[in-house]
Amino acid sequence: MIQKVEKTKKKAVVLLSGGVDSATVLAMAGRMGFDLCALSFRYGQRHDIELSAAAGVVRNYPGIHHLVMDIDLRPIGGSALTADLAVPKHHSTDEMGTDIPVTYVPARNTIFLSYALAWAEVVGAFDIFIGVNALDYSGYPDCRPEYIEAYERMANLATKASVGGGHKIKIHTPLIDMSKAQIILKGIGLGVDYSLTHSCYDPGPEGLACGQCDSCLLRLKGFHEAGVKDPIKYKDKG
Amino acid sequence: MIQKVEKTKKKAVVLLSGGVDSATVLAMAGRMGFDLCALSFRYGQRHDIELSAAAGVVRNYPGIHHLVMDIDLRPIGGSALTADLAVPKHHSTDEMGTDIPVTYVPARNTIFLSYALAWAEVVGAFDIFIGVNALDYSGYPDCRPEYIEAYERMANLATKASVGGGHKIKIHTPLIDMSKAQIILKGIGLGVDYSLTHSCYDPGPEGLACGQCDSCLLRLKGFHEAGVKDPIKYKDKG
Repeated sequence: MIQKVEKTKKKAVVLLSGGVDSATVLAMAGRMGFDLCALSFRYGQRHDIELSAAAGVVRNYPGIHHLVMDIDLRPIGGSALTADLAVPKHHSTDEMGTDIPVTYVPARNTIFLSYALAWAEVVGAFDIFIGVNALDYSGYPDCRPEYIEAYERMANLATKASVGGGHKIKIHTPLIDMSKAQIILKGIGLGVDYSLTHSCYDPGPEGLACGQCDSCLLRLKGFHEAGVKDPIKYKDKG
Repeated sequence: MIQKVEKTKKKAVVLLSGGVDSATVLAMAGRMGFDLCALSFRYGQRHDIELSAAAGVVRNYPGIHHLVMDIDLRPIGGSALTADLAVPKHHSTDEMGTDIPVTYVPARNTIFLSYALAWAEVVGAFDIFIGVNALDYSGYPDCRPEYIEAYERMANLATKASVGGGHKIKIHTPLIDMSKAQIILKGIGLGVDYSLTHSCYDPGPEGLACGQCDSCLLRLKGFHEAGVKDPIKYKDKG
């Protein structure tokens, strides 16, 4: 008699904002066979559409765990996404002359990855996925490969697993060298429904994307270069 | 005529829990001449006495900035300090056989330091102080020097400052090689009022320290070895 052994799948924590990149990363992690744990944040962003998008995206993954953490970053300030600053309608530089726009949220990826690390430790995951991109990105320091490598090294000294030896924590950045068009084509191949995603930094009252902020411009350029129609609606378009 | 130049002091972000260690670190950073920005967390710990202690400690520093961030870690769970697990009344090991007690909060220092990094970036600080200790500590992985070094390296790739070059972020751990007794003697020399601090993981209804948890035991041992009377009250003592 052959005994059936239910093979337990390895878990992965996937940071999910509800945008094009993280929705694609989630699909990639799913295709790799991981048991998915999606992590989103209510961090004081000016609108909740991001979280509705994330909730829509996860609905396509039966059995997925989705955790939304409440972490209000507004008391720290320093960003147009969490403070009362205008979101620029063009690619902007900051007052220091670096090419980092005011939509940069100080240490955001560091904070998000730290929660992912904590949750990974609790659920027994050693794989963390983040949709950072060093090519078609907004110039944020915490999207660079050298940053991710340093984070992974730190993570492997931060947790119980690192004391017990054995498993190594891996920070997966499958999009890091891909163009936005490549990401979109990859996602379409994996069945990602981009009509559920949301990218705009400054959506209108009905949640329509502005089509003019950095994030909308990157998204539109990506769909254009991929030769695919962007399925979401824009304020001044159809 | 000599023109008066008001020298702007360098700012430092100091993680402040309200315990012996962080109260001492705050005094050390102040003595080093930093303009102090103290950062505390309401992270879902089972009692608010920690935060009252932190508020008491900062009152001795006129002009200090004190920020309390609300970051509920309970949805992540995994610790006796944030979940509904009993706090052991002895030094305990965990189910993995590592020497890490159930009071360990997954990735807590990583999360706390990430907020410190974000706030430092916003206020223009390049110095972050944390009262970790590798000697008289509870066996937490994120208190080890190699962890702190890796964190500092990551932090210097994570922020705007790292892109603009120039200033380097420094994670200061002035207590890392000190015994609890040495810390207490150092603090007394700097005028720290330890009657305002709080260490107990499991205080009684009136906020009295239990005198039996890991943290109380370390504190009591420290005062005993320093030859100083612990000025706080304990449940079963005077």
